[in-house]
Amino acid sequence: MALLQLTIIPMGTATPSVADYIADVQQALKQENIKYQLTDMATVLEGEITQLLAIAAKLHELPFQKGVKRVVTQIVIDDRRDKKISIGDKVNSVKSLLKA
Amino acid sequence: MALLQLTIIPMGTATPSVADYIADVQQALKQENIKYQLTDMATVLEGEITQLLAIAAKLHELPFQKGVKRVVTQIVIDDRRDKKISIGDKVNSVKSLLKA
Amino acid sequence: MALLQLTIIPMGTATPSVADYIADVQQALKQENIKYQLTDMATVLEGEITQLLAIAAKLHELPFQKGVKRVVTQIVIDDRRDKKISIGDKVNSVKSLLKA
Amino acid sequence: MALLQLTIIPMGTATPSVADYIADVQQALKQENIKYQLTDMATVLEGEITQLLAIAAKLHELPFQKGVKRVVTQIVIDDRRDKKISIGDKVNSVKSLLKA
Repeated sequence: MALLQLTIIPMGTATPSVADYIADVQQALKQENIKYQLTDMATVLEGEITQLLAIAAKLHELPFQKGVKRVVTQIVIDDRRDKKISIGDKVNSVKSLLKA
Repeated sequence: MALLQLTIIPMGTATPSVADYIADVQQALKQENIKYQLTDMATVLEGEITQLLAIAAKLHELPFQKGVKRVVTQIVIDDRRDKKISIGDKVNSVKSLLKA
Repeated sequence: MALLQLTIIPMGTATPSVADYIADVQQALKQENIKYQLTDMATVLEGEITQLLAIAAKLHELPFQKGVKRVVTQIVIDDRRDKKISIGDKVNSVKSLLKA
Repeated sequence: MALLQLTIIPMGTATPSVADYIADVQQALKQENIKYQLTDMATVLEGEITQLLAIAAKLHELPFQKGVKRVVTQIVIDDRRDKKISIGDKVNSVKSLLKA
């Protein structure tokens, strides 16, 4: 199980605001059978690595469908094979260390 | 006002788990006079760009103080000069588009 | 045509040096039918986005085959649909502006 | 000694092409007393971490001076304290493993 942090940046848009493109991404994610979380800088997805990259590829296409000519997409994968990692686990694990 | 997304990766640690290093980072952030938020893949800080980079430089030093010999730190800055951006704003702006 | 910048970080390795894992990645890339370039911080691949992500997924598996338990992989995709982009183009385009 | 990989993305530009902004960055880097290298996806700088972050902060300002309202800047720092790392070292070290 892995986490994938995704940021999709449409370039050459008329205005600096890109919230509507991010809303498209969130709308599309609702159709996928995975857990995900929107943060202020990225979306974090949880799943198997092949599935996550397939979804990332689909989401990366969305701004092009709205006429954008260039998209920069940043992905960070955190993949552990010694234990299952789910959304919320790492935050909880750090918080319990802070309380100790 | 800018957001800075920070991920600090200590390398060559004996185990794959690095939660205690992230806890150090969170502990140090409490001393700083800024808003921040821990996500599962990063910490998001809010402030002026010079202040944020100075804090990032301090936090990057923490694993070395524990004996780590190599640290990879990823930073993404999102800096707007046409409007103030705060933690929570972008998530709220996307959510209101989804409801519309 | 897109460029994909790839950095594979094995975590929990005994030593901070990871050159042998990067050598595995370069060795595996020789088998693929694409153009690529090794830099000091990443490998840049050129191709169609689906093909590039499939190769990135394969390369991400390599450190696990050597016993590593956690791998952090960073990907940045730069994808233009208004013109073909190849390795070397962007550097050349900036250099010709500097000479002008 | 550390390497810093820098990518500056101006947002809300009229066209998808940003080569002139990158040329500004390269022009400004000539004034700095450090080694650097332009790749197709980023610029890699070599130096002490504090110096590198100060330069990154300066370069991040450049697109704003041309009227851009939002800049996304990605930084990856690779910092070793067990040995000196210079531009070219990691590529050479991987290449010598490939020949072995």
